[in-house]
Amino acid sequence: MYGVMGKMKAQPGKRADLVAILLDATADMPGCRSYIVAEDLNDADAIWITEVWDDEASHKASLTLPDVKAAITKARPLIAGFESQTITRVLGGTGL
Amino acid sequence: MYGVMGKMKAQPGKRADLVAILLDATADMPGCRSYIVAEDLNDADAIWITEVWDDEASHKASLTLPDVKAAITKARPLIAGFESQTITRVLGGTGL
Repeated sequence: MYGVMGKMKAQPGKRADLVAILLDATADMPGCRSYIVAEDLNDADAIWITEVWDDEASHKASLTLPDVKAAITKARPLIAGFESQTITRVLGGTGL
Repeated sequence: MYGVMGKMKAQPGKRADLVAILLDATADMPGCRSYIVAEDLNDADAIWITEVWDDEASHKASLTLPDVKAAITKARPLIAGFESQTITRVLGGTGL
């Protein structure tokens, strides 16, 4: 399985709005086994997103989904940047 | 919800054994919504563990479970160290 862990920075004061967009658009994506959105406890603008997909192809395909494309357009002005992204090979666990 | 993301380093050549112990012991822990074990793609000894718990208390309580305590004893000689650990406030997502 294909894992993605990323730290996204919201524009100041926009984290809650950005989280809402992310959660709304990612509830039903083919091949997505886990998509978890969390707040960083030490940085008021930082969001952690951890994802698990069947494979890299299903992750890429998700970017073409109408809901996801609409969410990206909506979210873009609220995003200040991306601090880190780690790609992993997921082996298993609970919640997949 | 209480999120934990950590990077663990196995002793050289021991990652697969360590992953097996982790997956075996963490399948059924009260309050655990997600416990995902992954290999780092750039470091042959590195393991990423991402966890989501109902709350910090259920995470702490898991360390007293017999299976978890046995696994920690079994895993300890295979662990070279812990490179990072990030605690988050999980807001939602798929696979919880």
